[in-house]
Formats: sequence, C-alpha cells, structure tokens
Amino acid sequence: MTGPVAPLALSLGDPAGVGPELIAAAWARRDSEALPPFVAVGGAGLIAAAAASRGLSIQIQPVASMAQGAEVFARALPVLGDLDGPYTPGQPDRAGAALALASLTQAARLTVSGEASAIVTGPIAKARLAEVGFAYPGQTEFVAAAAGIAASDAVMMLAGPTLRTVPLTVHTSLASVPGLITLELVERRSAITAAALRRDFGLARPRLAIAALNPHAGEEGRMGDEEGRLIAPAIAALVARGIDASGPHPADALFAARARATYDVAICMYHDQALIPLKALDFDQGVNVTLGLPIIRTSPDHGTAFGLAGQNMADPGATIAAIRMAGECAAHRAGS
Amino acid sequence: MTGPVAPLALSLGDPAGVGPELIAAAWARRDSEALPPFVAVGGAGLIAAAAASRGLSIQIQPVASMAQGAEVFARALPVLGDLDGPYTPGQPDRAGAALALASLTQAARLTVSGEASAIVTGPIAKARLAEVGFAYPGQTEFVAAAAGIAASDAVMMLAGPTLRTVPLTVHTSLASVPGLITLELVERRSAITAAALRRDFGLARPRLAIAALNPHAGEEGRMGDEEGRLIAPAIAALVARGIDASGPHPADALFAARARATYDVAICMYHDQALIPLKALDFDQGVNVTLGLPIIRTSPDHGTAFGLAGQNMADPGATIAAIRMAGECAAHRAGS
Repeated sequence: MTGPVAPLALSLGDPAGVGPELIAAAWARRDSEALPPFVAVGGAGLIAAAAASRGLSIQIQPVASMAQGAEVFARALPVLGDLDGPYTPGQPDRAGAALALASLTQAARLTVSGEASAIVTGPIAKARLAEVGFAYPGQTEFVAAAAGIAASDAVMMLAGPTLRTVPLTVHTSLASVPGLITLELVERRSAITAAALRRDFGLARPRLAIAALNPHAGEEGRMGDEEGRLIAPAIAALVARGIDASGPHPADALFAARARATYDVAICMYHDQALIPLKALDFDQGVNVTLGLPIIRTSPDHGTAFGLAGQNMADPGATIAAIRMAGECAAHRAGS
Repeated sequence: MTGPVAPLALSLGDPAGVGPELIAAAWARRDSEALPPFVAVGGAGLIAAAAASRGLSIQIQPVASMAQGAEVFARALPVLGDLDGPYTPGQPDRAGAALALASLTQAARLTVSGEASAIVTGPIAKARLAEVGFAYPGQTEFVAAAAGIAASDAVMMLAGPTLRTVPLTVHTSLASVPGLITLELVERRSAITAAALRRDFGLARPRLAIAALNPHAGEEGRMGDEEGRLIAPAIAALVARGIDASGPHPADALFAARARATYDVAICMYHDQALIPLKALDFDQGVNVTLGLPIIRTSPDHGTAFGLAGQNMADPGATIAAIRMAGECAAHRAGS
C-alpha cells in the first residue's frame, strides 16, 4: 500500500451548461455513492449559485491547494481557483467560454504536475471555446497535448456499467470510414487499449473483441473485404504480441448479453457502431475515458445540455460514474 | 367480429437445423404462451424425431388440410404434407435442402390461397437451398414473388419486445451504403412501413423515427451531407403525405430507452444500425416481419444454428414470438 491517492481535479465545463450543477449534485451524494475526494476548479460563487438552482444547500469552501481540498472534502465541496462569474444557465457567452477554458487549463496542469490524481472534465461547447482561442477539436486532444502525447495516440473509450467500447474513427462521415481504417490504426489503438486496461482498470489479461466493419463480417469478402485485408491481419499481429484479441466479429451480435460476457472491451470501427449499443444499454451512465496518457482523464459522456441547465433536470449519473471511474483508475495506478 | 382466423402455416426450415425442434417446442408451450393455432408443413416422422431430441413427448397428427389442423391443434401438433425424411441434426445435405424448399413452397402456397392466415418461415441455409434450385437471395424475396410483389417493395422489419427497426440496406458492404441511400428509397420504404403498421399492427397513426446516416446526423453537413440532401427531403415528403415521420435523428441516441418511447419504428440506413440495437436489447426474441405483402409473413430472426441442432440447446423464444406476431397481424387484418 502506498499513501492516500491525491484528490481528483474537476473542470467546470461551460458555466452556462449543466457542468457546475452536476459537480454540486455529485458532491451532495459523495457518501451514498462512496466517491473519492475531488476538488472543483472554478469559482465558489458560481458553483454555489448552480447548487442553489437544484435546491441543494451545501457547504462550499475555497481552498488554496489540492491537499487542502482533500482535507475539507468530507464536510464541504472544495473549490480551487478564482474563476468566478455570474451564473446564467442556458445563456452561454464568451466570458463563460473563457472561464471554461481557464478551468480546463488549470485542472490539466494540476493533474500533469501530480497534485491531482486525475482530471474529470465537464462538458464544453467546442464551437464557443474555439471563439476564445481553443485550438483543439475537443478536450481529448487538449488533454493529450497537456500531457505531451500525440493526439493520435490518445484513445477514446466509452464505458458504462455493462459495456466498454473504443471507436477507432469518430467525427467523420460514414462514407469516409472505410478509407480511414488501416491495419496500423486497428493494431496501435488496440494495443494502447490493452495496456491501459491492464494499468488503469486492473485487468491482468484484458479481452479485446474487434468488431467487423461490414455486415456479417463481410461473409468472406462477399460484402466488403476490409475484414480479411485489414482487420484480421491486425488481430493476428496483436495476438502475436501476446494480446487477447478476437474477431473480426459481426457487429450486430457483438452487443447481445451473452456476447458481452466474453470480452472486456469492444474495438469498433466507427462512431455509431460504438455509441449505439452503449447508449441503448447505459444511456445515463456513460463515461468517456482517454486511454494512453501519462495522466488519467475521464468525462461524463454528454454535452453541455444548455436547454436543461439551471432547472434541476440534468441527471448526475454520468458525472458520478466519471468521478468514480477516475478514482478507481487512480487507485490502480497507485497500486492500491 | 368476423369468423375464426385460419391457422398459421409454419415451414420447417432446413431439417438439419433447429427449425423442426423449435416448432415442436413452441407447440408444447401453446397454452402457457397463448399461441394461435398453427400447422407445420413437413413430415410427421421428422418432427417427432426432432421433438424427441428435446425430450418432448408430444402428440403429432398428420392432417389433410389447414382446417383439419385447426381442429386438432389443441390436442396434437398438426403436420400437413408428406415431406418426411431422416432426422440428422447438424448434418445438412441436399435431400434436406430440397425438403426445406418443398416445405417453404407449400406453406407459401397455402398462405397465398388464404387457407393459412400467415406464413412463419423456419431458418434455412441460403447457400444450400441455392444448390437445389432456389433462385432468390433469401426467403423474403421468395415470399414476395409467391405473393406477386416486387422484392424491392417487400420491406424487412425486425421486431422485438422493446424495439422495431427497418434496415433500408442489408447485405452490402458498408462502403456501398451511402451510394445506395436515395430520397425515393427512404420515402417509399417508410410509406410501406407506415401502411403496414396501420393495417397489421393496429397502430392508427404509426410514429416513424428516421435515423441519420452520419454521426451526429452530419452536424449540418460537417460530416456528411446525406441528411440534408436525401433524408430530410424524404421526411418532408412523408409528412406532406400525412405520415408521422421525424428525423433525421442521430443514431447513437435513438435507441436509448427514453428515445424509444417516442416512436413505433426506427427506419435505419444500414444492416448494423438496425441490428445492433435490436440484438443488444432483444437478442432471443427478434422477429423478422415482411411488410408490404398481400400476405403476412414472419420468421424468427436467427439462422439454422446447425451447431446447436438436436441438443435441446436452441431457445424457442424467437419462434414463439414470430408465431404470436403472425397471429396478431392476422387478427388485425381480419378486423378482430
């Protein structure tokens, strides 16, 4: 056993979205959900207003360091930083976007330095962040850069209570997907995934199920040849490296209950192949985890939900799940 | 109220597969599952052997007509036809394929003539049927031809207890899908689906949710333009015809529980988009229904499962669901 793990750093997300209120809601349930200590990186006034919008009467305490945050967590929601502003839920503006970026930047810095054991990022509006100088496609790429890793080696995994999936391609047209799938992509991202499941999820020999691209896995080339040409050779290369990889599996059967019991993660070829089953099965509890980084990063798998913010309507399930998963990963890395 | 609805005609499927034993298993549960009367089109000896392989001791009675089948159904499994042969589960051969084709042909004829109120087709091995002269891609096209309908107007719907989906393209490579989606395809198949849900499923105003092709429904053309160019205009045309069609919906969120409550059928652009959520949610109870025909046709949504046949391992859930759905559709058409 090592010493206690450092607390998590939570970035606010866009202050006009559901991020701040869900941090407050998660802290209010810290005992019943057995959550690890965390510190909100933002401003005490804004979070207090967001908590009030949910009818939550909670103690909020500004702190000067993550270590102090760990001390106060049991009795108050610790807030680090002076990133305060008016709370105007549902009305995003440039000042709020700048505040979201400052929170994200500071939370990433605290995690890279080791003061925080992991970063849990709140939901942002990418287009609005771009207006205030954010030069990344999304938070995953930002966090990868902050940690000194090429964005192409930062692997997005979606995880719910019943399923983990890795989409190898994401925000690209369906027509462009077949041209983006390469042997190298399948092999490299799968290997990163396997290493991360060992290190951060405590799986001694993670089982990877690699999905096919085409229906019925192409039926021996009769409906698409990517399985034989790219995916099967990548699986053979992974197996040769000692990784427990199987497939290519016809994607339609891969997410049935009996099939899910046979693997720890499904490697998927495109966005909807990975997200349809995850949201069908685990809608309100999906966590976005970035694998392959020297730091641990999780995020609730939903957006800013400007239309729900400030109305006590947003479900904190995914935020709670992201916090718990970050804590578990940090504990695994610390060897505890 | 009209008179009693005629019994269903069940084709055997490949006799080396799980088809015959599942007919016997369904009949054994006729009371607990409240199944409508049905007649197996095949041979009494073969079905008796298949029943015995599951340890089922059931009465089997050869009948000379569907009407006689209806009379005996309560006390014995009625079998029409002299399509008998040795029962060799797991060992398909040409004689068995010929028998499967004869059973399918006769069951379709009985349904087109009106002696049967619907056909429930057992699972076949398409490649083996082709060897004995079957000139169709699958049973759907065969049944459409038998009913005098163009195969392109026979719409495949997959239905489970929690979800109905229609895949607009099926057994084709993923790369070919975008080129196959046209405004006309979306509009015509959706309209056929809406009409069938009214006539056969008793939905006065069926709600159709049309899925997008691209992730996030293309995000206004940033990742694919098929939504704006083809799918949205098709939806507008459907709405102009008085059909309750919505979308294009991002496919990842469309199958979450809350979303599913807002529609009666999801119109999907490709095989895995329709089949991933169905099998994730309703694996053992999926029914394949052919819409747009003058006759009613359902089928359990699984294959011959040669590897499971004769071992009392195959789940009769999908066969029971296919029989029940065929009976319900027949009752709706009969106006009862």
